[in-house]
Amino acid sequence: MSTEQPARRRGRERSRADRTAVKHEKFPYIRRAIPNVNLFDEETLVTIEANADRILEEIGIEFRRDPESLELWRKAGADIKGERVHIPRGLARALLATAPRQFTHHARNPARSVVIGGNNTVFAPVGGAPFVTDLDRGRRYGSIEDFTMLTKIAYMCPAIHHAGFLLCEPTDVPVNKRHLDMVYSLIRHTDQPFLGASNHGARAADSIHMARLLFGKEFVEQNTVIMCVINSNSPLVFDSTMINVLKEYARANQGVIVTPAVLAGAMGPVTTAGCIAQILAESMAGMALCQLVRPGAPVVFGSFVGGVSMQTGAPTFGTPNASHMLFAVAELGRRLGVPVRSGGSLCASKTPDAQAAYESAQTLLATVLAGVNFVMHGAGWLEGGLAASPEKMVLDADQLAMMQKMAEGLDMSEKAQAMEAFREVGPGGHFLGCAHTQETYQTAVYNSTVADYSSFEQWSQEGSLTAAERANKVWKRLLDAYEAPPLDLAIDDALQAFVLEKKASMPDGLE
Amino acid sequence: MSTEQPARRRGRERSRADRTAVKHEKFPYIRRAIPNVNLFDEETLVTIEANADRILEEIGIEFRRDPESLELWRKAGADIKGERVHIPRGLARALLATAPRQFTHHARNPARSVVIGGNNTVFAPVGGAPFVTDLDRGRRYGSIEDFTMLTKIAYMCPAIHHAGFLLCEPTDVPVNKRHLDMVYSLIRHTDQPFLGASNHGARAADSIHMARLLFGKEFVEQNTVIMCVINSNSPLVFDSTMINVLKEYARANQGVIVTPAVLAGAMGPVTTAGCIAQILAESMAGMALCQLVRPGAPVVFGSFVGGVSMQTGAPTFGTPNASHMLFAVAELGRRLGVPVRSGGSLCASKTPDAQAAYESAQTLLATVLAGVNFVMHGAGWLEGGLAASPEKMVLDADQLAMMQKMAEGLDMSEKAQAMEAFREVGPGGHFLGCAHTQETYQTAVYNSTVADYSSFEQWSQEGSLTAAERANKVWKRLLDAYEAPPLDLAIDDALQAFVLEKKASMPDGLE
Repeated sequence: MSTEQPARRRGRERSRADRTAVKHEKFPYIRRAIPNVNLFDEETLVTIEANADRILEEIGIEFRRDPESLELWRKAGADIKGERVHIPRGLARALLATAPRQFTHHARNPARSVVIGGNNTVFAPVGGAPFVTDLDRGRRYGSIEDFTMLTKIAYMCPAIHHAGFLLCEPTDVPVNKRHLDMVYSLIRHTDQPFLGASNHGARAADSIHMARLLFGKEFVEQNTVIMCVINSNSPLVFDSTMINVLKEYARANQGVIVTPAVLAGAMGPVTTAGCIAQILAESMAGMALCQLVRPGAPVVFGSFVGGVSMQTGAPTFGTPNASHMLFAVAELGRRLGVPVRSGGSLCASKTPDAQAAYESAQTLLATVLAGVNFVMHGAGWLEGGLAASPEKMVLDADQLAMMQKMAEGLDMSEKAQAMEAFREVGPGGHFLGCAHTQETYQTAVYNSTVADYSSFEQWSQEGSLTAAERANKVWKRLLDAYEAPPLDLAIDDALQAFVLEKKASMPDGLE
Repeated sequence: MSTEQPARRRGRERSRADRTAVKHEKFPYIRRAIPNVNLFDEETLVTIEANADRILEEIGIEFRRDPESLELWRKAGADIKGERVHIPRGLARALLATAPRQFTHHARNPARSVVIGGNNTVFAPVGGAPFVTDLDRGRRYGSIEDFTMLTKIAYMCPAIHHAGFLLCEPTDVPVNKRHLDMVYSLIRHTDQPFLGASNHGARAADSIHMARLLFGKEFVEQNTVIMCVINSNSPLVFDSTMINVLKEYARANQGVIVTPAVLAGAMGPVTTAGCIAQILAESMAGMALCQLVRPGAPVVFGSFVGGVSMQTGAPTFGTPNASHMLFAVAELGRRLGVPVRSGGSLCASKTPDAQAAYESAQTLLATVLAGVNFVMHGAGWLEGGLAASPEKMVLDADQLAMMQKMAEGLDMSEKAQAMEAFREVGPGGHFLGCAHTQETYQTAVYNSTVADYSSFEQWSQEGSLTAAERANKVWKRLLDAYEAPPLDLAIDDALQAFVLEKKASMPDGLE
């Protein structure tokens, strides 16, 4: 290459090569260097906390078909009427004194372990979608093949720090066996931390057992290697399935994310202030129960902020109400002294269009600024969570990487202050080819994997592709470049043997 | 309608009627009830302020081909070398002591006047686009017909508080006459505050003259009724055109928004900390010159945050670097004691797709949280500002309305706290049909004008439209429903006479 070649043309050629070559780069989880944004004042938060306490005491919360938890609550000082537990004000919060403020969630590759809580933020991919949709094949029920595909794509995205769990429902596997295939796939295809099953006590136990096969029994007794998501049956109910799962994980000293599934106007009041109090009440009750089961068990204050359309009854996301909830939940979690989980790139749109992106970005930036610690559904979510999309995953993951750079703060090094650049360039000059730019641009600027920054003419010549159409090419390139991280063969054998044995012991088609 | 009809079906029918009927509702400008988000600490800001001062003193800033401004600077204590003005540290800031912290920018309809500065945020539409693009006709050079169309659509959007100025370039009108048609169109088709020409001193004078015809000469002498945007020729140059325009507006006691047109890596350093210092230096110098021209003249600290792609040299928006700049500029403006202006829904995308929406939402939410006072390009901007799009305008305006609801804070009324709703519904119940929801939903929830909240099946039946395709229908409905606000006939005649007379006195086709 001639040294006379203009810097700009050199840049263009380099970039074309860069864009074609797929590197597998993973960012460590985010150590925030920006402050947590507190949108609400002391008076507002104190009022909401008092309302949460009043809800728990005056209305109470039902723990259904689980005498053990009623007994735990009775001993702790709650007033039990049937299955309704009236928790005296302050009791739930007091019980949370034993919960860790932050904890390490271990990965099989120690370099991928994450810290949940404190000044840290961890991104995980979409979870819970029965459908998968992409631009080639359209929308269909998810399969275990789709699940593995989504797992691999997420693994290839630098700013997805956690493998998640139910990236899509593998509906081609019987319900009672799915968790085995999913946990195995997450262990085999990533070396990141992961979640386990939470739809049945026995499946929770299987998930924890597989984690023990992977990490060793003693290590698991002392460390958090798997977490689960517990949804309250809002309003104000925990059913026996959820309680059993909660007890399995808490007893094993594993992480429990207690997430009230409150959509404002359906499972909670349509007014935001009321919804926030309910989310706090339900999550405090669930996390407190974990502490009654095993004091010190790692818990996370979960939330999932959305509403329902008063026109259609369908979920809404990315609204101003949802933003208020997000900020409030993060603040309340910090006051409570527990890590906070919320949803990341949530949207109601059916397709990765402008609606999907507006809704996702509004949710995601608020999530990151608010200081949420564990961000589920960070990438790949469409249609209120009914569908997972590889195109959306690629688009969202690009945003996650940008959010990571944003949250890691402003570079105030002498180089970044650029006084030498001003002296070099001077009034009326240009910075594009200057020495300072050449020295710093590779670290100063995040290079989007999907944004188009070409001219209109160039973009037109290349087919006037939308972002979703470009993302369709990107996820295929990521899949092509995917390589499985090494896994100890003896562990792999043990895991496979367990899955086979368990499956053989089960009837097909159970709910 | 039968009273037995389920609430949900009633809601759906009501909504269909609501969505068809177009009401012309305008929100007042935003009185913020959320705090301004400060992302950076004292040390960071003090360092950047010191760097801005060093740039002004050591490197200096050129005021080209304008002896008068050099003389003003000399008298104020700056060191002049040729056209290079070296401003001693602290001088620019000291000169800004006479600038108002906030001021009213009057509209011909007093109900539409806005306050620029303080705890207020004002949204204005896209400005400066040579092209117009829509889904029907594609991309073409803008015309005065397009300009009027965009003006009307913006006027129909509730959360666009200001008419803006150059919604698109009316390229079918000679360059030297365009400002007359545009100012007239803004006055005739809206009753909102507006900006005037800033591409020539004489055109600035014409704009101010038209404002005097509208508001009366004495009123304009005492009040701000028109503003302009001055771009420094970054780095560190003000040319004679910009200086002449600045002097016209400042002398007339009208608003000057001094906006360094810095794209990081091109007209400024690629490193963010350097860029922020440069923006501060250039804007301080321009605003200080306004104070030298007329102490007390209303000024606004402008910024326009973006970068250039190191691959293509084209502009980038919605990046983490841009977010850092936005937050920093807003904080620095508050410390300086002047209102702050930035861009709203900025994007590099060529089409209203997911890229456009991610970039715009990332810019917009940061803008609103940061506490920016005057938000230009709030709606309708595509392709780095090269194109204005009515579809994008409708999509963005929906986001602006959501941002307004978000910034107006959390309703903590007794009703919103919803304790009665919890008592009404109880554990395991449903809030959708409850009395509390029926009473509060209309004010509790913002109804998006373009988001689709139907089921996948319903959405598919209706043609699987993207958000942009739905927006295409919306802007046509808005145009159909548009009615011009009344304008005093004598004033209208005087304005038209002035425009005709001026045009007749001008040769065609001047730059």
